[in-house]
Order: sequence, then structure tokens, then C-alpha cells
Amino acid sequence: MKKHYQHLFAALCLLVFAGAAPASEPLPSWNDGASKSAIIDFVMRVTDVDSPEFVPVAERIATFDNDGTLWVEHPIYTQLTFAMERVKALAPQHPEWKTTQPFQAVLENDQKALAAAGEKGLLELVMASHAGMSTADFETIVTDWLATARHPRFKRPYTELVYQPMLELLAYLRANGFKTYITSGGGIEFMRPMTEKVYGIPPEQVIGSSIKMKFEIVDGKPVLMRLPEINFIDDKTGKPVGINQFIGRRPVASFGNSDGDRQMLEWTAAGSGARLMMLVFHDDGVREYAYGPAGGQPETKIGTFSPSLMKEAQESGWVVISMKDDWNQVFPPED
Amino acid sequence: MKKHYQHLFAALCLLVFAGAAPASEPLPSWNDGASKSAIIDFVMRVTDVDSPEFVPVAERIATFDNDGTLWVEHPIYTQLTFAMERVKALAPQHPEWKTTQPFQAVLENDQKALAAAGEKGLLELVMASHAGMSTADFETIVTDWLATARHPRFKRPYTELVYQPMLELLAYLRANGFKTYITSGGGIEFMRPMTEKVYGIPPEQVIGSSIKMKFEIVDGKPVLMRLPEINFIDDKTGKPVGINQFIGRRPVASFGNSDGDRQMLEWTAAGSGARLMMLVFHDDGVREYAYGPAGGQPETKIGTFSPSLMKEAQESGWVVISMKDDWNQVFPPED
Repeated sequence: MKKHYQHLFAALCLLVFAGAAPASEPLPSWNDGASKSAIIDFVMRVTDVDSPEFVPVAERIATFDNDGTLWVEHPIYTQLTFAMERVKALAPQHPEWKTTQPFQAVLENDQKALAAAGEKGLLELVMASHAGMSTADFETIVTDWLATARHPRFKRPYTELVYQPMLELLAYLRANGFKTYITSGGGIEFMRPMTEKVYGIPPEQVIGSSIKMKFEIVDGKPVLMRLPEINFIDDKTGKPVGINQFIGRRPVASFGNSDGDRQMLEWTAAGSGARLMMLVFHDDGVREYAYGPAGGQPETKIGTFSPSLMKEAQESGWVVISMKDDWNQVFPPED
Repeated sequence: MKKHYQHLFAALCLLVFAGAAPASEPLPSWNDGASKSAIIDFVMRVTDVDSPEFVPVAERIATFDNDGTLWVEHPIYTQLTFAMERVKALAPQHPEWKTTQPFQAVLENDQKALAAAGEKGLLELVMASHAGMSTADFETIVTDWLATARHPRFKRPYTELVYQPMLELLAYLRANGFKTYITSGGGIEFMRPMTEKVYGIPPEQVIGSSIKMKFEIVDGKPVLMRLPEINFIDDKTGKPVGINQFIGRRPVASFGNSDGDRQMLEWTAAGSGARLMMLVFHDDGVREYAYGPAGGQPETKIGTFSPSLMKEAQESGWVVISMKDDWNQVFPPED
């Protein structure tokens, strides 16, 4: 086949397959409005080779917070529920927990004592439930837990309480050559067992908080043991650090929902060329939750969206997504 | 176009383009022999969908050490040369270095005093040359240095002193659906400015040692400042830890050249299914360098290949690549 005909044939192949599989309208769960337009407009500008804002595929990096941005985080972080349920499951092996805080508070469902234990207490719960086993064993524990645990209000597995509009956004960005990353304050090994199946994000594109690991030979086989010692907190100023450490490039688009994502968005925004920064605002107490305290919504310690973050978003041209107004569907339909 | 014809047409398209670009013989710089066969045999087994050892594309992870595996590491690590040359360049701003070890040793080219400074002294040199600037500034410093520095023996840029057979191996693996990673004891931000251009490995697939970073707002712009504090040493038992942290999957193939790669190969080997572990053995003093002390070759502190590593390789079925016998070319031809 001569070169000339090859080109013709290639063009024909493209036409046929483009015709055979017409692209469906992107982002169906997004209502028409400023948020949806901002996404589509941004993607068109950076993917059009003739645009002055064109971004090569290799540099199309998009980073997403997880809790409250991709999946539900209220009434408390899923990982915290996991930690408390693990403590209950492990309690028979730790009779001393019956009289030791913060374990006693968990075993007795004593919210006041739990709150009083503060961050230090929380850390003890996390270490007791997340360390002391191999990475392989931890993966099994998490996978088993996610398969059976149910959200207290929605009575569905946590992996189904992901935001349908954000799943569509992830897919839309990937279809346009973006590499999508998670960059969460949550534990990296708590997320990895589910991110590929739930979000289409492979483990190597998940960045999160971590505890230290130790390589050991056990019964002649190498294992990585999880140690009760913080390695890295991927939150607030830690997010740009984690992004730089894992990716080594600055994202061109970042998505968050709380004060913990502020520096990630600032870091993304500070690059040259087209940029997209968006924040999910939880203002939908009917279909999901409403919290702030921005917009005069109830205060929360889980996913705080402060008035000063709202102010920075407005002054900086970051797009605030109204869950109530911008999304015509929150969760995927039940199976 | 009816569905039936579409399938036929798709098959035709595939045939035409497969025919239009015949695959050239892979690995031309590798002599026929056990090493080359081991590579091709492994790739065929894991990519053949009908093979019991088939590995899905998502799990085709291959990790490569850098110093001594992908590029030259003698007479001393390139990054150490960089550190010493940076100290010389910065000396006018640090008059106290004239009389302070280990800086004095560098400024006076005093190898004995330098050796006497030991690891602690080395660390001081690295911190003085690698910390105290933003990540963006460090990238510029490294890029500029690599553009002008020349290897003392070969008189070529370090980025040209990469092993041609390994470049072919990287390309061959990628052509077969592998994701290729660097996992080096060297500094992650020392490597990233050159890995995409030199190896075809993007920054997000580079794992290495690191110092801590701090997010700061300077003149209203966010920057990541490099701090004089070790964050992670990606060597020996650190390599499996780094692999797990960054990739979250176990590699199916690993390539190293020294005792620092032993645990990475053990970790790779301990997975189920087909595995390929290979070690470059520097036994070519004519075209490159010869060092061990395995095989009775000269001892070295740079890229030690100990007799016990050789024994483990032989007992475990790891393939030892003889630079002298397996490679018909060491470096790419000069431009």
C-alpha cells in the first residue's frame, strides 16, 4: 500500500470509528451553568493545538482531594469509622482497652470522651488499627471492611457514596488526555484498595498520608511491616509537598472542598498558562449534607469550608461548585 | 456501516498498519546469549494472553536503579561530583569554608581529608549544595550543570554516558505495555530534570532519595523550599519501601547493579507469577569500568557488587548481565 493511500486509509479509519461511536454529551449529571461551563471551556482551551493555552498531554495533570470531593465525608471521615470499628473488632485481644482512653470511649460509643481525647487520641486509634501488620494484610483488612461496611444514613457501601458528577468529571478529563490523581489527607493504603475500581485511578496515582514502613524478612519471605509512626501528612501545606514528591510536576487543574485543599489550589494556580481550580461546596442537606461555616452553614470539624477560603476562591477566580444547584444527581444509582 | 462490516474494517485497519510499520529486531546492542534470551522470553510469557503467566498491562511495572544500571557511576557518583562542584561555585559566598571541613577538602581537592570526613561529611556537602533554595531554582541549577559538566574520563556530558543496551531495554519493555520506573538512591530532584529526555521516563515515574520540603508564600507566590533535612533514603531496604509508597504495586521486573538493589530484587522476586530480576555486572575496564569485589574484581565504595550478592543471584535465578560479554555497545554513539 503506497504512502498516499495509507494516509487516506488512516483518515477513513478515524472517520468510521468516530462515526461508529459518537461521543455522548459529557457531564450529564452537571446542570448547565457556570461550573459545567468552566470545566468544558478549560478542557477545550488546553486541548486545542491551535490555542495559545494548549497544554501537551504529558503535562495534563489533575489532582483531586478524596474526602468530601470524590466521596462522602459526613457525619465523620470513612477512615475514622474504619479505625473505630477495627478497635472494636480487636478489643477481645486488648482487655486493657476497656479502661484506657481513647479506646474505652470507642468501645462505649462515648462521643464526649472521644472528642476530649483530641488529635492525640485520634492518632492512638489510627495507630492501633493501622499499624503492626504487613502491607498485604492491611490491604486485605481494608478490602474486607469496605465490602461489608454501610454508611449510617444512606445504608449503602461507602464505595457507592461517591459523587456521580465527579466520576463523570474524572472520565471526561481522562478522555481528554489528563492523568487524574488523588491527593488526600486520608491514608494512602486505605484508599488504594478501592480507587482503581471506584474511580478508575490506579494505585500509582494515589497520594495520601502515610505511616512508616519497614522491610523485613519473615519466614524467608520479604514483607513490608506497617509501623506506628507518622511518615507524612498529606493535608494543607503538605498537599503541594506530596504533589511535588510523587508527581514532580505542577497540576494544571485541582479539585477540593475544604480548607485542607487551599494550598493545593494555590500551588496549582501559581503555574503559568491556563489553570482550573474548583471547590465542592456542600450546601445540600436534603440529598447529602450542608456544612461550612462559609455561607452561614453549620460549623464542622470534618471538611471545614471557612469564610476565608470562600473569599480567596472568589478573589482568585476559583470555581465554587454548589452541590444543590450544579448537580442534578449526587450519587450513582443503586445497583 | 453495519456492525459486521465495522469489525471486518477494524481488522483490516489493524492489518494495514501492522504491515506498514514492521517491528525492527529488538535489543540490537545485546549480544545473543542468556541475558538477551531471558529478557525476550520473559516479555513473551507475560504478554501472551494465552500464557498461564500472562500479566495485565496495569500490572506490568518494571523498576530500574539509575547509578551503574542506567548511567555511569565511576569514578564517583555524578551527583557527588555535582555537589562538590556546587560547593566550589558557592565558595566565594562562604569564606568560612576555606578552613572548615569537609568544605576545605573539596576546595583543596584533598581526597584523603574528604574520605576522612566520612558519611557525615558527605551529608554536609549535599545539604550545602542541595538545600536552601526553591524546587524551581534547584531544577534550573541541575539543568544548567548537566548541560555543561563533562565526565573526567570520557569527556562527554553525563547524560550521554547512559547504557545504550539499557535504553533499548526500556524502550522494548514500554513497547510491550510496561510502565518503566527509576528507583535510585540518588536524589529524586537531581534526576527528574533529565529522565524524560534521556530515558523517556516522566518525572512521576522517578523514585529517589529526598530532603524535606516546605510550602511557603514568598512575595505573594507559593514556593516549595528545600530544607537541609533528610526525608527519605531510597537505598537497600528503602527501595521496596519507596516502591510501595510511590507505586503501590509490586514490580514484575527489576534491574540493578549493586548491593543497594538487593532488597528491591528480593521484593520483586517474592511476588507470584513470572518475574525477571537482573543485575548489571561491571566487568569491562576497557569500555567502561570493572569493579566488584564479586568475581575477584577491585573493591569499590561506589556500586559495590559483593560476593554474597553474586551468590544470592545465582541461587535465586537472577540474571547477571556481563557488560563485557552481553553488550556489543556500551554508550550511544557521539552526536
